[in-house]
Amino acid sequence: MISPREVIQKKRDRQVLTPAEIASFIRGYMSSEVADYHVAAWLMAVYLNGMTIGETLALTREMRDSGRCLELSSIKSKKIDKHSTGGVGDKTSMIVAPIVAACGLTVPMITGRALGHTGGTLDKLESISGYDSRPSPEKVIRILKTVGAVIMGQTEDLAPADRRMYALRDVTGTIESIPLITASILSKKLAEQIDGLVIDVKTGSGAFMPTITMARDLARSLVDVCSLLKTKITVLITDMEQPLGRAVGNALEMKECIEFLKGNAPEDLETISIALAAHMLRLGGRAKSLDQALNMAHEVVSKGEAAERLRSIIRAHGGDVRVVDNPDLLPRTHFIEKFRSSATGFVTRCDARLLGLASNALGAGRNRVDDIIHPAVGLYLEKKVGDRVERGDVLCQIHWNDENRLRQAIPLIERGFEVKDRPATRRPLIHAVMEGLR
Amino acid sequence: MISPREVIQKKRDRQVLTPAEIASFIRGYMSSEVADYHVAAWLMAVYLNGMTIGETLALTREMRDSGRCLELSSIKSKKIDKHSTGGVGDKTSMIVAPIVAACGLTVPMITGRALGHTGGTLDKLESISGYDSRPSPEKVIRILKTVGAVIMGQTEDLAPADRRMYALRDVTGTIESIPLITASILSKKLAEQIDGLVIDVKTGSGAFMPTITMARDLARSLVDVCSLLKTKITVLITDMEQPLGRAVGNALEMKECIEFLKGNAPEDLETISIALAAHMLRLGGRAKSLDQALNMAHEVVSKGEAAERLRSIIRAHGGDVRVVDNPDLLPRTHFIEKFRSSATGFVTRCDARLLGLASNALGAGRNRVDDIIHPAVGLYLEKKVGDRVERGDVLCQIHWNDENRLRQAIPLIERGFEVKDRPATRRPLIHAVMEGLR
Repeated sequence: MISPREVIQKKRDRQVLTPAEIASFIRGYMSSEVADYHVAAWLMAVYLNGMTIGETLALTREMRDSGRCLELSSIKSKKIDKHSTGGVGDKTSMIVAPIVAACGLTVPMITGRALGHTGGTLDKLESISGYDSRPSPEKVIRILKTVGAVIMGQTEDLAPADRRMYALRDVTGTIESIPLITASILSKKLAEQIDGLVIDVKTGSGAFMPTITMARDLARSLVDVCSLLKTKITVLITDMEQPLGRAVGNALEMKECIEFLKGNAPEDLETISIALAAHMLRLGGRAKSLDQALNMAHEVVSKGEAAERLRSIIRAHGGDVRVVDNPDLLPRTHFIEKFRSSATGFVTRCDARLLGLASNALGAGRNRVDDIIHPAVGLYLEKKVGDRVERGDVLCQIHWNDENRLRQAIPLIERGFEVKDRPATRRPLIHAVMEGLR
Repeated sequence: MISPREVIQKKRDRQVLTPAEIASFIRGYMSSEVADYHVAAWLMAVYLNGMTIGETLALTREMRDSGRCLELSSIKSKKIDKHSTGGVGDKTSMIVAPIVAACGLTVPMITGRALGHTGGTLDKLESISGYDSRPSPEKVIRILKTVGAVIMGQTEDLAPADRRMYALRDVTGTIESIPLITASILSKKLAEQIDGLVIDVKTGSGAFMPTITMARDLARSLVDVCSLLKTKITVLITDMEQPLGRAVGNALEMKECIEFLKGNAPEDLETISIALAAHMLRLGGRAKSLDQALNMAHEVVSKGEAAERLRSIIRAHGGDVRVVDNPDLLPRTHFIEKFRSSATGFVTRCDARLLGLASNALGAGRNRVDDIIHPAVGLYLEKKVGDRVERGDVLCQIHWNDENRLRQAIPLIERGFEVKDRPATRRPLIHAVMEGLR
C-alpha cells in the first residue's frame, strides 16, 4: 500500500495523483488501513486544491468498484437513468420513470432521501401506503422485466466507499467540491450498469450549486468523466430559483405527479420533465431527434400510458395503487392555512430555499439523518414569479398539523415571497444542455 | 459548543476564527466531542489557508491551557528556557543549561526525543547510565532549587492538546505550517511558566525550515505570539546546512558537550551555544548588554563552573557523573570505520540532512516512534565545509555496530560530502536575531 500520508501530501502540494495512488487510498479506506482522519485531511486538500479530470475519473472508478454493481445483463433493452442534484419541489423522477418505461426503455432508478432543504424521491414515494423502496435483487430484475422501471433506495453494497465518504464530507465541510460531487454521483449511477444517464443540475437559491458558473463547471466535469467511462450522458442545467411545480412536501408532490400524468401539469414542471424524458429517450436510441423524443414523451402522457405505467410501478413495489385514481387517499393534514398577499402587484420572488426551509419546518424534511418525515405537510403555491396578485389573494396554502411548526414556517414563507409594482424579468427554465459521447 | 463543521468551514473559506471558536474546537477535541477527523480536516485547511497572529495566539493559549502548567511560583530567580526547532548535531541544550544555571538563572527545560533525521536532547542525555528524564513534580522543584536546571521529558499533562494534535499532524501531512508550529512550540514552553524564552530556529538542509525566508516567517510568528502572551522572547535564526560541531549521534554528542564545557569546543558549536546562553542571560536580566552576557557565558566555562554545574545536573537526575571526568565511560561501538576523501581540494559540502540520515541508518535515530535508539553509533566529522583535504584524508569516523546498517549509511555519507578544487563561500552561522518585548 502507498503511504496515506504521501497521498495526502501530494494533493496538499497541488500535485496530480496517479490512478494507483487513488486506488491504494480508497481500497485502504475500505479495508480500514486508511483512517477517517487521513481521508478527512485529504478531502479538505481536494476541496481547496481541486482534482484533474483524470484524478476524478480514477476516484469515480474506485468508488464504483468498492462494492457490487447491479447485475442487469439479463435485461436486453437499453437501461437509462436520470439523476437530479436536488431541489425544492423537484419531483420529476416519479414522472419521467413511467414516461420513459412506457416508451420501451428500462429505468433502474436508485435514489435518495431528503436532507437539508431539498426533498428526496424515496420520501415522496413512501407517502404511498405499502410502497417498498428496498426490493430484493431478484425482485428488482422481475420488476424491470415486467414494468420497465424501479424506483428504489441505495443498497448497502452499492458504492459503499461513497456512502462512507459522503458521511465524512458532511461533517468536515467538504461537500461542495466539484470533483467530489462528480465522483459521488457517477460512482453510484455507473454501478447500475446503465447505457446512458441524464443529469439535471439545478442552479439557483434552492440548489446545491447556487450560481450558473458553478453549475456549468459541475456539468462539464460530469460529462467528461462519464464519457471517459464510456457511458452516454446528457446534462441539463435547470433553474431552481423558485420551487418546481406548485407542490412542496411529500404527499402533495406525489399528488402533483399523478395529476401531471393525467394531463394536469403546471407549465414549468411539464417543460422540465418532458425535456428530461426526451433526453433519456434519445440516449436510449428511441428517437432520432429531440423533437421526435419530445413528441413521444407528450404522447404517452396524453394517451394515459404513462399514468398506467405509474400504476404498474407502484403495484410492483407493493404500494396502494388506488391513489392513482384518487390522490386524496394520500396522507392529508388536519389543517390548511391560506397565506395571503399583503400587497397588490406582481410576484417577483418565490424563493426556493426559503420555501424549502418552510416546508422542512412544517415537518416535510430532515435536518438530521434520523429525523422522522411527516408525509402530509407542505406548501401548495397558488402564485409564482410573474403572476399578478391583488392584496388579499392567496399566495400559497400551508398544509400543517403542529402549531409550533406552523409558527416556525410562517416567517420563512413571508421572507420567501416578494410582491412589487413591476414584474421581474423571468429566468429561463433550462439554462443549458451539455452532451457527452454519442 | 460551536459546531465543529462551522469552525472547519470558516477556515476552509479563509475567514478569521474568533477566540471563542478556537476555544470551543480545542476544548471539544479534548472532551472527544470533536473527533480526529474534524481536526484532520481543519488542520489541512489551516495548512493551506494559514492563520492570523490573533488566531495563532488563541490556539497557543488553548493548547497551553489544555493541561496543567508547571507550578514554579516558589522559585524566586528568573526562569528562562531555550528551544531549538531541531537540527543535526544540535546539542546546545546540554551546554547552555549548565552555563545559564551557573550564572544564577533557573532553566526548567522540557525537551523531546529524536524523530526524522534530527536528534533529540533526551536521547543524548539517556546515553548517560542512570539518567532519569521523568522526575516527579516535587523532584523537579528540588532540582531547580538546588542546581538551577532540569532537562526532562514532556509530562502527560503538559499541553496534552499539542501532543494529540502533533500525532495527527504527523500522519496527515500537516506538520510544516507556521501557525501550527508556533502554537505547538509556545504552548509547551509557556506551560513551563517561564519569564523568557530563547528560540533557535534552524535553517538549511538539515532543518525543518529549509529556506531563510521560511525561517524568518516562523521567527516573526513566534516573536509576535509570545510577546502578546507577555513573555520575553529572542529568536536566533542559525545555520543548519552542515551539522553543528563535529559529533552526530547520542553518546558522541554527549561527549562533545562535556569536552566543550571543559574548554575544548569546535568553533561553530561555541559561537552558537555562547550566543544562545548570552541571549538567555539578557532576557533574565543578568547582563546589561549582549557583550557583557557573552563574557559572562565564556567566563563560567573557562572557570570550570559550567562543567561543575553539568555534573550537578546529571547527579540530580540520577545519572553516572563519572562520565564528566571520563567521557569514555559513555557507550562505545565495537567498530570505527574511517571514511576517506577520494579527491584533493576543499570540502564544499558536508550536508546536514544526508549525514543525519546516515547517523539514523546506523541506529542513532528513529523512523517510527517505537524504534529503539542505539546510543553509541554515529559520525565524528574530521573535516567540515572550507577545510582543505588531500586525497586519502579522513573526512569522518563512522562509529558502527551492525554491518547491514553500515552498508546503508555509507552511500548517504558519500553523497553528503563534496570536495572541489576551490572553497565555497561560507554561510554565516547566525543569520538573524529577532527580539520581542523588552
